[in-house]
This record gives sequence, C-alpha cells and structure tokens, in this order.
Amino acid sequence: MPRSVAGPEIERLIQLLAKLPGLGPRSARRAALHLVKKKDELLVPLAKAMDVAVDTVVVCSTCGNIDTTDPCTICADHRRDQHTLVVVEDVADLWALERAGAINARYHVLGGALSPLDGVGPDDLGIDKLVGRVAEGGITEVILAVNATVEGQTTAHYIMDRLAGQNVRVSRLAHGVPVGGELDYLDEGTLSAAMRQRTPF
Amino acid sequence: MPRSVAGPEIERLIQLLAKLPGLGPRSARRAALHLVKKKDELLVPLAKAMDVAVDTVVVCSTCGNIDTTDPCTICADHRRDQHTLVVVEDVADLWALERAGAINARYHVLGGALSPLDGVGPDDLGIDKLVGRVAEGGITEVILAVNATVEGQTTAHYIMDRLAGQNVRVSRLAHGVPVGGELDYLDEGTLSAAMRQRTPF
Repeated sequence: MPRSVAGPEIERLIQLLAKLPGLGPRSARRAALHLVKKKDELLVPLAKAMDVAVDTVVVCSTCGNIDTTDPCTICADHRRDQHTLVVVEDVADLWALERAGAINARYHVLGGALSPLDGVGPDDLGIDKLVGRVAEGGITEVILAVNATVEGQTTAHYIMDRLAGQNVRVSRLAHGVPVGGELDYLDEGTLSAAMRQRTPF
Repeated sequence: MPRSVAGPEIERLIQLLAKLPGLGPRSARRAALHLVKKKDELLVPLAKAMDVAVDTVVVCSTCGNIDTTDPCTICADHRRDQHTLVVVEDVADLWALERAGAINARYHVLGGALSPLDGVGPDDLGIDKLVGRVAEGGITEVILAVNATVEGQTTAHYIMDRLAGQNVRVSRLAHGVPVGGELDYLDEGTLSAAMRQRTPF
C-alpha cells in the first residue's frame, strides 16, 4: 500500500478533485499540488468562487437550466422568442447551443435521455413538465435538440408521441456533414443522412 | 462572440477551474457543471477542503515539501534515515517516490531544474540551501533523483560540482528498462544505458 504522501487535508483535496470529470487520481494530484503552490493566485480565489457558487447557484424551476436566478436569465429574457421551445438532454447542451448562438429561444432541460438499460424512464426526465408547458399554450414549435444517439432518438420519438394532438410543430436538428468536416472521415450514417437531407445550392 | 451562458458566478468558477493542469476551457465547463449539479456531494465538500487547505498548507522550510506542518511530516520523522538526502526537482517527484516507497530517507526539493533558456539559474533553485544542509554534517549520501532530461542532468552535474570537497557520497538513479517495459518500444539511449549498467543475475 502506498504511503500517504501529504497531510490528510491535502489527501482529502486530492480525493475530491479526482471526482471531477476529466481528472483521474494522477491528474487530481497534479491539480492539488498546482493549487497549493499557487495559493494566492488560484487556491484562494477558487475556494471563494466555490463558496459563492454554493450560495448562489439554483436550478431554474421553469426550464431546468442552472443559473443564479430562478427563473433563469434565459427564461426571464422577454426579448427571446417565446413561441419556440428547444428541448435538450442536459444543461451542457443548452450551454453549447447558447455559445454557438444557434437560436434565441427558450429551453427545456430533460436531465437525460430515456435508457431502459440504465433504468431511466419517462418519469425520471422532465417530460411531463414539458408536456405541461406546451399545454399551457403560446408555444408553436418544439425543437428536439437531443443527441444523435439511440437514447436521444428514442427520447425524441417518445416526446413526439406525447405531444401528438397538441397544436404544436415538432422539429429536430438536421443531420449532416459537420462544418469543416472531411467526407472521407465521416461514418456512413452521417453521409447517407447528409445526402438524403441535401439542400438546394 | 459567444454569449455568456450562465451567471458571472459560474463563469468565474469555470475560468478558475480552467487554470488547473489537465483541464482546458471545455473540460472546465464540464467540471463546473458537474460541481453545481452535485452541490451537496461534491461542491460543498470541495469548497470546504479548499478553505481548509488555504488555512493549513505550508511549505516545509527545511526541505521544500508541501505539508500542513513545518517541518513537514517527513523531515520530522526520526525513524527515517537521517544520513541520506534525496534531491528532487519538484514536490510531485517527492510524492511519486513516496508512493513507490522507494526509499525511507529525507528529501530536498529544488523547485525546478537549471534551464538557461527559461532563465532558471542556480539562484532560483534551492541549491545553496542544499549545500548548506550538507555542510552542517550528518549527511553521508546525496541521491540526485532528478529527471532524466537535459535540464535534470545539467542540474545533477552542477550539484555534483558544488558538493565537491564535501565528505559526502553523491549518487543518481539508475537508467534502465522500466519494469514491465518491452525492449522493442524503448529508445536507444535507454537500451544502451541498461546494457552498460547491467547487473549480475
């Protein structure tokens, strides 16, 4: 068994850092060492930023986004298209679409995708809430911006069924060649989809 | 320009996390999202662990190790061999040797290696302090456990020169085939060194 190399306080910091996505045990040690070496420049401000986050971060009760206000900045922004709802699996997807400036509408975060193998059913996702939001009226289009995975597409079909009968247009993201992508490196599914969904030039 | 996707509190957390080694801007966002999602299980304890680290972590004034006591646990451990000093470039190297249980002696952390290109000279490293520790007497062997890089070896030679005339044995780590390593994948320098320094079977 390896000896403990530093005090329990540092070991605890390493253990917690190792739980972050993207950091393993080795990189967590490097990160902890970097932090304690750069105490004033990094450790102190980061500890403070985390304390602030603990006190201020909330989940938006309307859309499921993470922000410091409830409703979140996006839900509260009346300059956004109020008639379009973009359904995403995760807050990270919402952030990605916002970074891209892909659309200026509001969102609905499901909190995952249907996955019977992982025991994730409709009740575990925000689908009832989504149906409720649409039933309140005012929404004319629901864009299913879920992942292009089996789980994502299953979820999309399930939501499509649940929204049937409501007076709302349901759309989903286009499949196709990524911007900057080389055909030679793309899978057959993407190429076939890009061909089927070709657009006039 | 991408829009800010979350409140300034979360953006600040992301920016600081991105300064950790091993985390880029994208993985820092993922880490921040993971943290705020797992507020009670991860964010709160990590913030607390950092606050504790801020208050407790010190650099050992004897060897340069990072610990919560000064002198550090290793320097204060009288069961360790008091006659042998292991010279390492960085605290991470000390931790690595301790994890391996490679030796039960005391250390001297240089804080880097000589690198004229990066403007790192003898005065920037703890070399005077090392010479001073040896001059105090009681040390019979100095093991230069520096990296097998040009900078590390330059540093080793420089320390060797500085310790000349003192009544102390200076050694360095063996070069050779890593345990579990396959010859076919090793560089010529390592193979030649392993051959030259072959040991009786």
